[in-house]
Amino acid sequence: MTKDPVTIVEVGLRDGLQILDRVMPTADKLRWLEAEHRAGVNRFEAASFVPPRLLPQMADAAEVVAGARALPGVIIHTLAPNLKGAMAALAAGSDVLVLPLSASEAHSRANIRKTREESVEELARVCRARDERAREGGCQTRIDAGISTAFGCTIQGEVPEDEVVRLAEACLEAGADRVALADTVGYADPAQVRRLYRRVKEIAGDRLQSAHFHDTRGLGLANCLAVLDIGIREFDASLGGLGGCPHAPGASGNVATEDLAFMLEAMGFDTGIDLDRLIEAQRLLATLLPGQTLHGKIAAAGLPKHFHRSPVHA
Amino acid sequence: MTKDPVTIVEVGLRDGLQILDRVMPTADKLRWLEAEHRAGVNRFEAASFVPPRLLPQMADAAEVVAGARALPGVIIHTLAPNLKGAMAALAAGSDVLVLPLSASEAHSRANIRKTREESVEELARVCRARDERAREGGCQTRIDAGISTAFGCTIQGEVPEDEVVRLAEACLEAGADRVALADTVGYADPAQVRRLYRRVKEIAGDRLQSAHFHDTRGLGLANCLAVLDIGIREFDASLGGLGGCPHAPGASGNVATEDLAFMLEAMGFDTGIDLDRLIEAQRLLATLLPGQTLHGKIAAAGLPKHFHRSPVHA
Repeated sequence: MTKDPVTIVEVGLRDGLQILDRVMPTADKLRWLEAEHRAGVNRFEAASFVPPRLLPQMADAAEVVAGARALPGVIIHTLAPNLKGAMAALAAGSDVLVLPLSASEAHSRANIRKTREESVEELARVCRARDERAREGGCQTRIDAGISTAFGCTIQGEVPEDEVVRLAEACLEAGADRVALADTVGYADPAQVRRLYRRVKEIAGDRLQSAHFHDTRGLGLANCLAVLDIGIREFDASLGGLGGCPHAPGASGNVATEDLAFMLEAMGFDTGIDLDRLIEAQRLLATLLPGQTLHGKIAAAGLPKHFHRSPVHA
Repeated sequence: MTKDPVTIVEVGLRDGLQILDRVMPTADKLRWLEAEHRAGVNRFEAASFVPPRLLPQMADAAEVVAGARALPGVIIHTLAPNLKGAMAALAAGSDVLVLPLSASEAHSRANIRKTREESVEELARVCRARDERAREGGCQTRIDAGISTAFGCTIQGEVPEDEVVRLAEACLEAGADRVALADTVGYADPAQVRRLYRRVKEIAGDRLQSAHFHDTRGLGLANCLAVLDIGIREFDASLGGLGGCPHAPGASGNVATEDLAFMLEAMGFDTGIDLDRLIEAQRLLATLLPGQTLHGKIAAAGLPKHFHRSPVHA
């Protein structure tokens, strides 16, 4: 019996590192990438293309992308908040470019300094620029609209589901190849994620494939399970549960890559990941960030005694 | 629309405390009970009736049960490993008596110092003693067979599902009113729990109602969600995620009561619990156990901004 494949996108190099005060040297970022690649992870959200004065952590975005590209079979996701960043991300060679938009108007103004409508217009400009590059030949970058605060927001609280659905629709009309929903601040619960995923799936179909949950309030893996049950097969996660949102106070901790991979493999899905090697990568990360609290449980508790190693794709 | 009720049984006073080296004074146990009762929790696994020389933490079991009984509406679960303990538990006034049996033969010998067959015989003796007391008048104690290591064991590794099903069947034949399945060491995954709950449900029907999951490897709440989806409506949990099994190395952390209650309330279930007051109880527990690592996330992260307080039953 063939196992059902599930893809994990490691977003720690972007979502995890962006909240840290200290800048991780480029060489360390590449060691992290290589260690996880050795464990079988082959999709990385490797960097965001933002002005270095706003986020010094990402000043080496193009170098990190180039380094990641040197690893066999790696697919590179990057993030850019606007057209200028997007052009740099395309030039650097992104397989997937994520444009973040906030479903919460309050969070949108605070985080991206744009209204939601302005964000959609920027997304449309980015899609047109990509299409133009594609016609000139060469550019095959997929553009994902990453809808953040889709399940609530620390600034405005509740985010009406109708507004999330409308924003997803507007993103697809603006030319995005995909939409993704993110629980940026860890407010989501399993009933809510099933409800909203089903609604957005109705308008987006196969153009909704991935989930991005934070474990701030402990429900990260339960939320992954909730959408796994309704057919979602792509998840963002961060090694050691590193992450959060600098503009959403208290919002720390993506779902830990190693715990998610353990859950999926234990359930019989094929992640292509060797869990022992992934735990080794988590230990490397701990040495690269001394004093940093890492989340996730499997690295400390160890794999179950009878747990079988899964085959590595790489 | 009436909300679907879900019951949480606070097991921290038994499963949580039993792994600690220090003995919590009776007065502190009662303060903990009262604080959680104030939050709307009304089922407590309050103590285990074991020889005080083996577990000094439980030497005050009868006093704790008497103290709990003084709180209005409280339903008291206790645990006893054998007939002698069971008689003390019945005499103390237990509404529910849990007899633990290990699905893993290796864990059974190490933990209860009995084979599984001997455990079932002991259960039968306890059920007969209860029935006799019932005929003499008065005793209405329900007897639950608590099947531990039902999803794996740190000593023997995998526990065959067929053996768990057969043990559940034997417990019901021995006279147990209910069976419950416990992931004592945090090995379970959502696919496995759904599979095994469905199988045991086939033979037990309504006599299987509750779940006991540990969060040792981070899947505690995902496992709760997995069985919630197939109709389970009663969960063991421990305030602050305190707990584990002294005979299963590395097995620390029941599902945290406050995180589970948050998940259930967020999903629209009625737990009868006031989450703000439950978090206050968690803070009290932290002061009662200085230096003790508590698990769970919601107490640190805080409730979502728009989260509505649920009505308290008590």
